[in-house]
Amino acid sequence: MTTARQIVLASRPHGAPTAENFRTEEITLPQVGDGELELKVTYLSLDPYMRGRMSAAKSYAEPVPVDGVMQGETVAEVTVSRHPDFEVGDLVRAHTGWCTHAVVPADRVRTLQTHGAPATAALGVLGMPGFTAYAGMTVIGRPKKGETVVVAAASGPVGSMVGQLAQLAGARAVGIAGGPRKCAFVRDELGFDAVVDHRDPDFAAQLAEACPDGVDVYYENVGGTVWDAVLPLLNTFARVPVCGLVAQYNATGTGDSDRLPATMGAVLAKSLLIRGFIQNEFADEYYPQFLAEIGPKVADGTIAYREDIVDGFDNAPEAFIGLLEGKNFGKLVVKVS
Amino acid sequence: MTTARQIVLASRPHGAPTAENFRTEEITLPQVGDGELELKVTYLSLDPYMRGRMSAAKSYAEPVPVDGVMQGETVAEVTVSRHPDFEVGDLVRAHTGWCTHAVVPADRVRTLQTHGAPATAALGVLGMPGFTAYAGMTVIGRPKKGETVVVAAASGPVGSMVGQLAQLAGARAVGIAGGPRKCAFVRDELGFDAVVDHRDPDFAAQLAEACPDGVDVYYENVGGTVWDAVLPLLNTFARVPVCGLVAQYNATGTGDSDRLPATMGAVLAKSLLIRGFIQNEFADEYYPQFLAEIGPKVADGTIAYREDIVDGFDNAPEAFIGLLEGKNFGKLVVKVS
Repeated sequence: MTTARQIVLASRPHGAPTAENFRTEEITLPQVGDGELELKVTYLSLDPYMRGRMSAAKSYAEPVPVDGVMQGETVAEVTVSRHPDFEVGDLVRAHTGWCTHAVVPADRVRTLQTHGAPATAALGVLGMPGFTAYAGMTVIGRPKKGETVVVAAASGPVGSMVGQLAQLAGARAVGIAGGPRKCAFVRDELGFDAVVDHRDPDFAAQLAEACPDGVDVYYENVGGTVWDAVLPLLNTFARVPVCGLVAQYNATGTGDSDRLPATMGAVLAKSLLIRGFIQNEFADEYYPQFLAEIGPKVADGTIAYREDIVDGFDNAPEAFIGLLEGKNFGKLVVKVS
Repeated sequence: MTTARQIVLASRPHGAPTAENFRTEEITLPQVGDGELELKVTYLSLDPYMRGRMSAAKSYAEPVPVDGVMQGETVAEVTVSRHPDFEVGDLVRAHTGWCTHAVVPADRVRTLQTHGAPATAALGVLGMPGFTAYAGMTVIGRPKKGETVVVAAASGPVGSMVGQLAQLAGARAVGIAGGPRKCAFVRDELGFDAVVDHRDPDFAAQLAEACPDGVDVYYENVGGTVWDAVLPLLNTFARVPVCGLVAQYNATGTGDSDRLPATMGAVLAKSLLIRGFIQNEFADEYYPQFLAEIGPKVADGTIAYREDIVDGFDNAPEAFIGLLEGKNFGKLVVKVS
């Protein structure tokens, strides 16, 4: 019998999660049934959306129950197979949650496809975050030649892809990142046309200066004060795909002045399009085209990306807490074994 | 020489406009040049968007300058024609602004087309407000059979059309109106499936009860507290065309709690589409089809509507002030002569 360790939600956080909200457990895996696989997890993806699952509030997905295993996507190796499509040693992408080993139905895993990139790419640039960028830009943002696209968390897996897709479409990519190291990476390694540090006291003025022709697409993945700086810069008919609001995930109350009228006023005055989405919605229609189009560009280095790999399963909670504070630098992945 | 009276913006309002913000002037019309028409205004349309033009803030249209003539659409009779397409006595739709007579270029007026309905219909049900409803529903709202459509100011020219278009598409129409008289009209004369009075203290609970399957399209033309009541009822993939925010036009400050995070959170959690628009954007593509499709339905009574006709040019400012307070009952039009 295989012993697995798993990290469960010990209690719901009030505001920012702390170590006490998580608990590590040891379990014995069940027997592998017909059509199932036993997996040894290699890498665990940590993503901001997981903060939402820790709250009881209903969202697009059910919350993780208290004492339930934290959800998440992983790269894993097949250690036992009772399904004809998989052999021991195969590498797969699975939704095992935060655990070291798991038994899962074979029809819920996918064979790893990374076009020659490392396995971790399947969790980032070629996985859910990369596709989130691709779907939001392809279906909602639709940047045109000469337009200006702004994205925050630009050194992260979604933001870095958004800016590079903008440039592939002939648009100008303006990134927002936190601190000089991340800003330098966005400008020099990712090749964005401009980058602005949201920690600078005159951030809003700098952003305006970086967008002399206004903003045609603001890819919203952070919310908060960045939105306030972007709003006055949006051009008529600007598009705002909304895939994340990490800046407000940990908020416990509301601010003391109402920012909604300004937003709705701009929606009306500038004929804005704001569209929330989860990449699932577009996966059937666009994921194959994403892999075919972007996979080779990642493999040949046309599309750059960065990963932040934390070593050790037990470090997942701390790494996740840091993610919500912007401490990671690149796609955050935990090396499990 | 023809003498005209016109109402100008005497000063910019702070909050709700008052009589002092308007001034009536008498002018002598210029000579009618080649390609121009002299018009005698019959009816002046009063619409909430005019409040925006009274403010200095840049919006989708330039503000009216102080001492400038208040802008607006009118029905008028040609009294002098120096253009081959028009004859004296022709009825036209024009943008003369708030005045009794005007000289305008002939290429800026349209011959009245009301499919047998009264001339005032060209300013309401078959004019800009009716088309605003049609464009927002056709392009953005896209109600499907069995869905629920909610609209506020349901007895007004936009709202009444929105609900009837929803029903033509097989959707359920839920109207919001202020006071028992308007509510009875929406239910009994317009035939909405349900109506809720936003003045009732338990308005939000009543709205929830009237929408047991949630809300698929919220046609936003008022903003304010109605939005707060609708937000929790919106279904995944709900569409929100935004064509007006009359409840916030007169606001002078911001509330004391921030409503933006809840809105953006819902955008993300429910994959909402919010799209501001001005009917101009869709006029070339959809106005002819609107007239062809809706004109006969207005003429044969399939589509009901109501007008609130105020007698006398001098009453325009008071009527407009009342419009922003919801005092009108139906499309507000001033009978000029």
